[in-house]
Amino acid sequence: MIAFPDAVGRLAVALGGSPAAKFAASALVEADALGLPRFGIAMLDEWTADAAPVPTGASPQAISWVDASSCFAPLAVASATLDVAEAARQFGIAAVFLHGVRGFGRLAPFVRHLADAGLLGIAGAEGPPFVAPHGGTRPVIGTNPLALAMGQGSDRVVIDVATSTATMADIRNARASGTPLPDGIALDGDGRPTSLATDVAALLPRGGQVGSLLGLVVELMAGVAGGGRGDPKGRGVFILAFDPVRPGEGVDWNAKLARLKSDWTNGGGHWPRGGRQSAQAVLEDDFAQRLDACLARMTGQPGR
Amino acid sequence: MIAFPDAVGRLAVALGGSPAAKFAASALVEADALGLPRFGIAMLDEWTADAAPVPTGASPQAISWVDASSCFAPLAVASATLDVAEAARQFGIAAVFLHGVRGFGRLAPFVRHLADAGLLGIAGAEGPPFVAPHGGTRPVIGTNPLALAMGQGSDRVVIDVATSTATMADIRNARASGTPLPDGIALDGDGRPTSLATDVAALLPRGGQVGSLLGLVVELMAGVAGGGRGDPKGRGVFILAFDPVRPGEGVDWNAKLARLKSDWTNGGGHWPRGGRQSAQAVLEDDFAQRLDACLARMTGQPGR
Repeated sequence: MIAFPDAVGRLAVALGGSPAAKFAASALVEADALGLPRFGIAMLDEWTADAAPVPTGASPQAISWVDASSCFAPLAVASATLDVAEAARQFGIAAVFLHGVRGFGRLAPFVRHLADAGLLGIAGAEGPPFVAPHGGTRPVIGTNPLALAMGQGSDRVVIDVATSTATMADIRNARASGTPLPDGIALDGDGRPTSLATDVAALLPRGGQVGSLLGLVVELMAGVAGGGRGDPKGRGVFILAFDPVRPGEGVDWNAKLARLKSDWTNGGGHWPRGGRQSAQAVLEDDFAQRLDACLARMTGQPGR
Repeated sequence: MIAFPDAVGRLAVALGGSPAAKFAASALVEADALGLPRFGIAMLDEWTADAAPVPTGASPQAISWVDASSCFAPLAVASATLDVAEAARQFGIAAVFLHGVRGFGRLAPFVRHLADAGLLGIAGAEGPPFVAPHGGTRPVIGTNPLALAMGQGSDRVVIDVATSTATMADIRNARASGTPLPDGIALDGDGRPTSLATDVAALLPRGGQVGSLLGLVVELMAGVAGGGRGDPKGRGVFILAFDPVRPGEGVDWNAKLARLKSDWTNGGGHWPRGGRQSAQAVLEDDFAQRLDACLARMTGQPGR
């Protein structure tokens, strides 16, 4: 077993010890602690000793583009998030577009950092074509999650929603276990609904037309404006942040957020918090052994 | 009958003849030409001769807030859109948040203007609580549309999607005509599904959870960060734009957009264009008479 802060601390050192390294390490370990190992330290499989340093501009820019194809992706996304927070504080609003991004984990920890900084943060990621348009028959866009976070403490909101009914990993798992898929998840190679994982050629958008259009919004932002679409080296990711405090005005958006949360939960809704592992969490032996193996490979030294 | 440009021209003069007046006039007349009279010159019912001029800053701001409660709403939204386009060209990215906005029509013409200016434009509008959260029983947020536009010509995309299954106007129409509602549209005062328009106490989110979360995104942007939520004088509206051209780089986002459109339509998807009336359109006598009546009231002179 290993305590959450210890795991984060050891991984942060192996990633270079920078603020971005600590942030990336925390995001990855958190996914494992939340029981989402596909988005956790499994990402370290793509780490290489010769990964390029993350490109950063000489000074903050309100809008910028980053080619992350030579970088370790979680570090690149963490670094871009730190940069966009600084730029949003300086300019009021800022955005960064990354392309060539390999597996980086979940969006939630990155937008949550922007909320911690007092900003409203929005991010989205496009990816390889697995999902058909609403009413369509063939895959065109990725599972394209959108995330938003604002606020602190118990009123904080962290939305992190995929725009497809399932992920390709879900399909692979169903294929491996021989489990039939629920209705309305996927299409076969002829564009017909299928519940056989072995026949899946396309996933369906979540919630029909509205999920399809939201997936298209993410594709237009991260894939077209951000330049990620069709890049064989990785995904397109956008991160946008702005400071909701109006200069010279006393409007308290925190109070409006608290009231909205209260209305939402009193109306029977679930207030999304995006998951966060407490610093007191302890991870199991299986995780500790996987982390040791990763660190040994990264540092060239046997694990402790 | 009246030709589209003539109707726009006459209304623009009555609204003061400014660029914002021409833009607002075009947006309203277009809705009537598209057969959406609820979003057209019916908005002029809220025009008053003593409406305040639309507040504009001395110089473009990357992020700004506008109290539109004393303004004619379509003019305020048009003026804010023109301002955000100028600010986005200057700073690379910009956003404006309006609150106290009365009926202004559709979002599509406003984001389309940003696309015409070579920008990617996003807008959203929150409103009175008619829509329940996913899984909930009582109304908490508005029908909260989100819109996005980019590109020009045949590749242009204009998304304009409501996050509810229906509008309160749909419910009023069904109530007036005694028509039963389709399943999955609405809840009664006890939070149970209903098909009786007279029993409707809440609309349902479009597409279940994903539509509910998208409605919440719009509420957080326009209602919390923008300050519109709970303002009895009107809605919260946000308009955000950025310039997707990277300084010093040759990446052609127009080519990526054209390719995405081709992939989307070849995959069986509908490429959303948000409706646009051709300049050759002719509006019917009924519209011409309603316009005459509006103009007579606005100018204090009998219609021609």
